[in-house]
Amino acid sequence: MTDKNIPDIVVSRLPIYLQTLQHLSRQGKTITSSQELGEQSFITAAQVRKDLSFFGGFGKQGSGYDINYLSARIRQILKVDRIWNVALVGSGDLGHAIARYPGFAERGFHIRYVFDNDPAKIGKMIGTLPIISTDKMVEIIRQEGIMVAMITVPSRAAQSVADQLVQAGIKAILNYAPVALNVPENIRVETVSPILQLEHMTYYL
Amino acid sequence: MTDKNIPDIVVSRLPIYLQTLQHLSRQGKTITSSQELGEQSFITAAQVRKDLSFFGGFGKQGSGYDINYLSARIRQILKVDRIWNVALVGSGDLGHAIARYPGFAERGFHIRYVFDNDPAKIGKMIGTLPIISTDKMVEIIRQEGIMVAMITVPSRAAQSVADQLVQAGIKAILNYAPVALNVPENIRVETVSPILQLEHMTYYL
Repeated sequence: MTDKNIPDIVVSRLPIYLQTLQHLSRQGKTITSSQELGEQSFITAAQVRKDLSFFGGFGKQGSGYDINYLSARIRQILKVDRIWNVALVGSGDLGHAIARYPGFAERGFHIRYVFDNDPAKIGKMIGTLPIISTDKMVEIIRQEGIMVAMITVPSRAAQSVADQLVQAGIKAILNYAPVALNVPENIRVETVSPILQLEHMTYYL
Repeated sequence: MTDKNIPDIVVSRLPIYLQTLQHLSRQGKTITSSQELGEQSFITAAQVRKDLSFFGGFGKQGSGYDINYLSARIRQILKVDRIWNVALVGSGDLGHAIARYPGFAERGFHIRYVFDNDPAKIGKMIGTLPIISTDKMVEIIRQEGIMVAMITVPSRAAQSVADQLVQAGIKAILNYAPVALNVPENIRVETVSPILQLEHMTYYL
């Protein structure tokens, strides 16, 4: 399904379209247009049409897009038409908030394991998940074939955690630590950077 | 200082350079190059030079960039050479994690007020901050002249909170709710979208 010719910037907009489609669907709509989809995604209608054309036509001229069909196709393209098991490393305040947040599971990202290296935390529960020692992390992730991980450890520990995750077979890392991670080229990393987003906005104030 | 001719994409990379410069500085370095700055920011050296040239030359050919000077200049350009008072709306798990996280204050974003509409939470403390009723939100933000806010309320409440924040005089919103917010054109919004980032990565798995 993955086509190397599709620019990453186009791929990065598909989750936005999917979110908007789900929003429209919750409003009871069944058909949308590139105009409406664009407006609610803050992307131009022309860009929407161009982006979707990379994956074959989804709509007929004049009749709009079927919301259910388009959602299902985008889910398939993004490979979120399945459940992804996720390992979470770091059980501080943010780790707790993430482990308890139902939004990830609702979108197919099920946090199955929480790891921490603090002996005082190991064995404690977050909801139904016990906090497990990072000593067992590589083995468990390998055994379970988990490919997606989230890092919520302090900056100074993030790179060494990332190294272990890669060694364990993780292919995609969502990094909440405010630091750039070095990983092999075949591993995807996305960093959640609220501070950089704030600093971007203050420029305009 | 704000120059409308500087593309937003360039502005969006300045916080990344600043983060890398701070990282280099903590390693004891005082001078860097566009090569090094780029490598550690995952941006090409040519792009680094081009981006920084928008704001006047910061380095001399061959002698590199003075890290302290360049950091100070970028801070000034981004207006993060000062303290920004921040209002946080929503005191759930994520709101708690954010209010207790020292990283925002370290970068000049001081959370001064936490608001919630849940009577059971109002008056309780998060660290040294009492949770205040959203009934008082517009008045307090206006009185204190606060311009930056973070939203960590559930999706269904996010738009109405944003409307109130705009009414109160907020100019920049960091939105943690997984929903696109409608605000007037002169208001900046950045959304923290970990789920979209995950969905972007799974495409490549």
